[in-house]
Amino acid sequence: MSERIDDLQIGGYRLIQNPELFCFGIDAVLLSDFARVLEQERALDLGTGNGVIPILLEAKNKGISYTGLEIQTQSYELACRNVELNSLSGKVIIENGDIKEATKIFGASSFEVITTNPPYIDENHGIVNDYTPKAIARHEIMATLEDVIAQSSKLLKPNGRFYMIHKPHRLTQIMVLMREYRIEPKRLRMVQPYAEKEPTMVLIEGLRGGKPFLKVESPLVIYKDVNEYTEEVLRIYGKTGP
Amino acid sequence: MSERIDDLQIGGYRLIQNPELFCFGIDAVLLSDFARVLEQERALDLGTGNGVIPILLEAKNKGISYTGLEIQTQSYELACRNVELNSLSGKVIIENGDIKEATKIFGASSFEVITTNPPYIDENHGIVNDYTPKAIARHEIMATLEDVIAQSSKLLKPNGRFYMIHKPHRLTQIMVLMREYRIEPKRLRMVQPYAEKEPTMVLIEGLRGGKPFLKVESPLVIYKDVNEYTEEVLRIYGKTGP
Repeated sequence: MSERIDDLQIGGYRLIQNPELFCFGIDAVLLSDFARVLEQERALDLGTGNGVIPILLEAKNKGISYTGLEIQTQSYELACRNVELNSLSGKVIIENGDIKEATKIFGASSFEVITTNPPYIDENHGIVNDYTPKAIARHEIMATLEDVIAQSSKLLKPNGRFYMIHKPHRLTQIMVLMREYRIEPKRLRMVQPYAEKEPTMVLIEGLRGGKPFLKVESPLVIYKDVNEYTEEVLRIYGKTGP
Repeated sequence: MSERIDDLQIGGYRLIQNPELFCFGIDAVLLSDFARVLEQERALDLGTGNGVIPILLEAKNKGISYTGLEIQTQSYELACRNVELNSLSGKVIIENGDIKEATKIFGASSFEVITTNPPYIDENHGIVNDYTPKAIARHEIMATLEDVIAQSSKLLKPNGRFYMIHKPHRLTQIMVLMREYRIEPKRLRMVQPYAEKEPTMVLIEGLRGGKPFLKVESPLVIYKDVNEYTEEVLRIYGKTGP
């Protein structure tokens, strides 16, 4: 297995990645910045992969603990090694298990915050009969969007917050399912490669048991010119300091 | 009554408006540009006010007819005069009636296209006991969002298209209701005052009986600088020609 170690550009943290499994992308970085974990709060990341989201959340927030749930053994083991590498044992907890069983594993109403960067591709589309780690990370093979939202609704405490990054073409389904499972969409942000381009990702925050009122924020724009990040993305990546 | 006549900047059309009732805004102009009416198609505008949307649609499209439904007598009469002023009798038809009765008035499956720029303000919020023409145009007093979508679903032919402009904070409700009444959201465009600002309006197209797949387009940006419209808005307003 060919592994590499990347600098996370925050808190001195590093991350072991294996390109044969799934390397984190800008999605995980943007979601970790979009989410907030307050003091005395516990966060859970559903489908955590190599653990990048709980580790980034820990670096940026003052919560009690950051748990990651991952079904794939290889990714789970990598996430555990990443916790050790950054001396985060006790603060970041990685569990090996199925999103569909998450409420059984952790108990109902156990978290103030849930984050998830789930597989984007509908189970009914794209490749089938491919159970490689990459396929499982990208396709709704082991858990559907509905599984993720249904479990999140049970796992969240009342007024708990749900943060997800996903694809814009699934937005109707996301909103319909969030409403159905009583996680009211409260904040939405389109992620666009350029200011004048269509979005390629959408960030959404929901409130367990919240009242209807959606705040659509300004678009999060990645590039201001070819190969030149916007100031906001540079800040998110932690590269603005001296 | 203090009336004025505005140049619609297209087809030589003009529009009588009465500021005591409700003057059309950029919303109506953007919706008329977002919507498409093909040859052999009939369009209906729900809550047409002074008739600006069917008149603009007629100027920009090659459909058979453009009907506007308006409940308020004064606005209905103004819309009829606007049809006469522009010699559009037979092509643009204005009816006086209630959106909630629209299927009874026109019959089910009667239109290929429905447009609507409905009241934006939830009946449960804002002023109450105000039945002035302006209040009725702005608040869900005579018809709710659900009334508009439920009637549209009945009025549209299979694969008929629904075009609406509304407020971003209602987007969840819009999508949930469209899905519920089988008008699948297919195209969505945020309208932003500036490229880096949050949207103030949302344009949405739905397909009666369509399959889930939402195309989120690039934002429609109004100004590129203070008091300076973007090229796209200038084109929409028909002011790009020599």
